[in-house]
Amino acid sequence: MNIRLANRMTRVQPSAIRELLRHGADPRIISFGGGYPDSSLFPLEQLEAVYHASIAGDGREALQYTVSNGPLKLREQIASRMRKDGVECGADNVLVLQGGQQGLDLVAKMLIDKDDVIVTENPTFLGALIAFNPCEPRYAVVKMDDDGMDMDDLERTLKENPAAKLLYTVPDFQNPTGVTLSRERRKRLVELANRFDFVILEDTPYRELRYQGETIPTIKSFDTEGRVIYLGSFSKILTPGMRLGWAVGSEDLIQRLGLLKLAADTQCSTLNMAAASLFLDKYDIDAHIATIRRTYRRKKELMLDTIRRTFPQDVAFTEPSGGMFTWLTFPENFDTTRFMADHALPEARVAYVPGATFFPLEQQVNHARLSYSTHTDEAIVQGITALGRLLTSRRGA
Amino acid sequence: MNIRLANRMTRVQPSAIRELLRHGADPRIISFGGGYPDSSLFPLEQLEAVYHASIAGDGREALQYTVSNGPLKLREQIASRMRKDGVECGADNVLVLQGGQQGLDLVAKMLIDKDDVIVTENPTFLGALIAFNPCEPRYAVVKMDDDGMDMDDLERTLKENPAAKLLYTVPDFQNPTGVTLSRERRKRLVELANRFDFVILEDTPYRELRYQGETIPTIKSFDTEGRVIYLGSFSKILTPGMRLGWAVGSEDLIQRLGLLKLAADTQCSTLNMAAASLFLDKYDIDAHIATIRRTYRRKKELMLDTIRRTFPQDVAFTEPSGGMFTWLTFPENFDTTRFMADHALPEARVAYVPGATFFPLEQQVNHARLSYSTHTDEAIVQGITALGRLLTSRRGA
Repeated sequence: MNIRLANRMTRVQPSAIRELLRHGADPRIISFGGGYPDSSLFPLEQLEAVYHASIAGDGREALQYTVSNGPLKLREQIASRMRKDGVECGADNVLVLQGGQQGLDLVAKMLIDKDDVIVTENPTFLGALIAFNPCEPRYAVVKMDDDGMDMDDLERTLKENPAAKLLYTVPDFQNPTGVTLSRERRKRLVELANRFDFVILEDTPYRELRYQGETIPTIKSFDTEGRVIYLGSFSKILTPGMRLGWAVGSEDLIQRLGLLKLAADTQCSTLNMAAASLFLDKYDIDAHIATIRRTYRRKKELMLDTIRRTFPQDVAFTEPSGGMFTWLTFPENFDTTRFMADHALPEARVAYVPGATFFPLEQQVNHARLSYSTHTDEAIVQGITALGRLLTSRRGA
Repeated sequence: MNIRLANRMTRVQPSAIRELLRHGADPRIISFGGGYPDSSLFPLEQLEAVYHASIAGDGREALQYTVSNGPLKLREQIASRMRKDGVECGADNVLVLQGGQQGLDLVAKMLIDKDDVIVTENPTFLGALIAFNPCEPRYAVVKMDDDGMDMDDLERTLKENPAAKLLYTVPDFQNPTGVTLSRERRKRLVELANRFDFVILEDTPYRELRYQGETIPTIKSFDTEGRVIYLGSFSKILTPGMRLGWAVGSEDLIQRLGLLKLAADTQCSTLNMAAASLFLDKYDIDAHIATIRRTYRRKKELMLDTIRRTFPQDVAFTEPSGGMFTWLTFPENFDTTRFMADHALPEARVAYVPGATFFPLEQQVNHARLSYSTHTDEAIVQGITALGRLLTSRRGA
C-alpha cells in the first residue's frame, strides 16, 4: 500500500542520530547526548501540593476545557515575569504553548511558504530545523564566534537573501554551542531586522540558567517595531513533563499564533496550566532556579575540568556561562559520528550528540555536543574520563 | 508594521461564531453551544489519587521528557482497548496525541498539499475544518441522512474528484448532527477508499457514549489496506483538561505521524500520560463510562422531551442514540445566526451554535447545534423552554 503523501513529507524523515542515540539508551552507557534537565532537582513536594490543590480545590474547572491561549491568570503571571526581565508586555502579548517546541512549529506556519528563507546560526538547534522543515523553507546560515552570531556575516547573508522572512536564534547559552549573543550584537540584530524587514524568533529556554557574568537584555527588549517573537519555557526551570512554554509578541502576531494553536491542538492541558499558575503563586520559583543554577554550575565546572585533565590538547571546547551544553571541536578530519558508533559507544560506553546534525547546510563532521545537566558528579567524571582516555589512546596510536 | 505572512494565513481567520459565543459567556446566559462534557462527572477522587501516585511514586520520571509517541505501557493499554472494540492492533500502531484535535492537524500535514481535495460530511465538525485549513485544501461534501453519509452521493463526489486524498468522517453520533453511519455504509466506504485510493480519517471521540442500540463496528475494523486512521480521545470519557487522545493506523503511517508530532510539540505531557495509564490500571474506566452514559442519556431525553413540548412543530431535530448533540432544522429562510444575536441571547438568554459554520462549502442558515451534556437537568428545561417560548411567540407573531 502506497499512500499518497504531501510534498512536505520529503522533509520529514527519521533522524539517523536519533537512532544512534536510541542504541545509547543501554543502561551501561553514560549518555551526554540528551538535553534533559536533572530530574533530582524537580520540586516534587511542591508539585505534588499544587496538583493536589488544583484537583481537590477546583478540579471541575482544572480538568475542563479552557480558553485556547491559556488562562488569563497564568498569562498575567508570565507577563509579570517578562516585565521584570525588561520586556514591556501584558497578558494579551502572551500565548501559552505546549513547550517552546510548539512555538517553533506555529511561527514557521505563520510566516513560511515553500522556499522562503529562514536565517539561522551555524550550527543551530536541531529541534528547530525539525519544526521548520514541514514548511519547506530554504536555510541561510550565519557564522558564530564566542559572542554568538557574527553581525557582519549576517549582513552579508541578508544582502544575498534580501527576501529572508525569519531569523531564528537561541541567544542565551545556545543549543548546541553554549555561546551567548553580546548586548551590542542584539541591538544591531534588531536594526538589521528593521532594515531588511524580517521577524526575529528569540528562543531562549536556558536564559534563567546563568552561572556567571551579568544578564544581557533580551533581543525583545530592543524591539522597536513588533518584529521579535520571544519563546520561553518551563521545561528547564520547573519540569519538561508538564509541557508548558510561552510566546511573547505583538498582540497582532499573538492573536494569529493563537488561531494556529487552536487549530493544532485546541489548548494546553488545563490541569498543567492550573498547577503551574498555582506554583508561581505559592512558591518562590526564583529560589528554585537559584538551586538549579548552583547545581549546573558545579556540574559544568566538573565536566570542563575533567575534559581539561583527560582530553587530547587538540580538542577545543566552549566555556558557557550558563545553560546545559559545551561544544567540542576536533581536528578537521575527525568524524564524531563514526567515532561514536565505532568506538565511544562500544569501548568507552559513552554517548554524545555528533555535531553534524546541527548544521542546516554543509555539515561539519568534527564537532560534538555534550550536556552536563543530567548526570551525577560521579557519572560525569567517569564518562568524560573514559572518553578522554579513549581519545588519547586512539590519537596516540 | 505589516509582517509578511505565509499564504496559508488567508485560511486562518477568527471565527465570527466564536466571537458570538464569547458574548454568550455571560453567566446569565444558558449556553447549549460548547461541546463540553459534564464536569460534575469527572472522577476527581480517583484522578487525585493517580496524580498523587504518579508524582510521589516516580515523579522524577513522570515529570521528565519521555518518548515522543507516548510511553509503551500507555500505548499497549490503548491497543488493548482497541482490540476489545474489534480493531487488530498493537502498541506500534498507536500514537498518543494532544487530544483528538492534534490528529486532525497531523493527518492533514501528512497528506494534504495546497488544493488537494478533502471529502467531508455535510455538515461536518468545525474543528476539523479549522485544523485542515492551514494546508489550503479544497473541500468536497457528501449528503447525509439518518444513517450518516449517503454512499451514492459519495460515489458521485468521488467521480467528480477522483484525486481526492482524504475523507474525514465522525461516524458515531456525529458532531454536529448526532447521526451514526450504518454498518453497511461503513463496509461500502472502505470499498470506495480502496477503489478510489484515498485515506479515511475516522474521528470518533463520542464512540463509547452510546445510550441505546447495538455498537456498530469501527470503520477501521473493515480496513483491508491500511487506509483508515482512527482517532480516539480521553476528553469525553475521562477529562478534556488532560489533553490526551490517540491515533491508530498502520505502522508506516503512525511512524510518519510520530515524526510530525515530534516536530510539532515533542510529546504530550509525561505526567498526564502517566496519570491516564495509572487510571486505566487501577480503576474500571468502563464502569465510569457507564455512569456518563446513563447521565447523558437522561439529559438527552430531557432535552428532546422539552423540545417536543415547547418548540414550534416546524422545527425538526435529530434523535441521537449517543454522543452530546442534537441538530435542529428550521424552515428554510430562518437564519439561526441572526436569530441568536437579535433574540435568543438578549431575550431568552440562551445560546447555541448556529449551523452555518459547520458547512464547508455552501452554508445553510437554518440549522443549529444543541449540546445536552454540560448543563443540569434544571438548566436544560429552563433554557430549552425559554427558547421554545421565544420561537413560538415570534413565529406566531
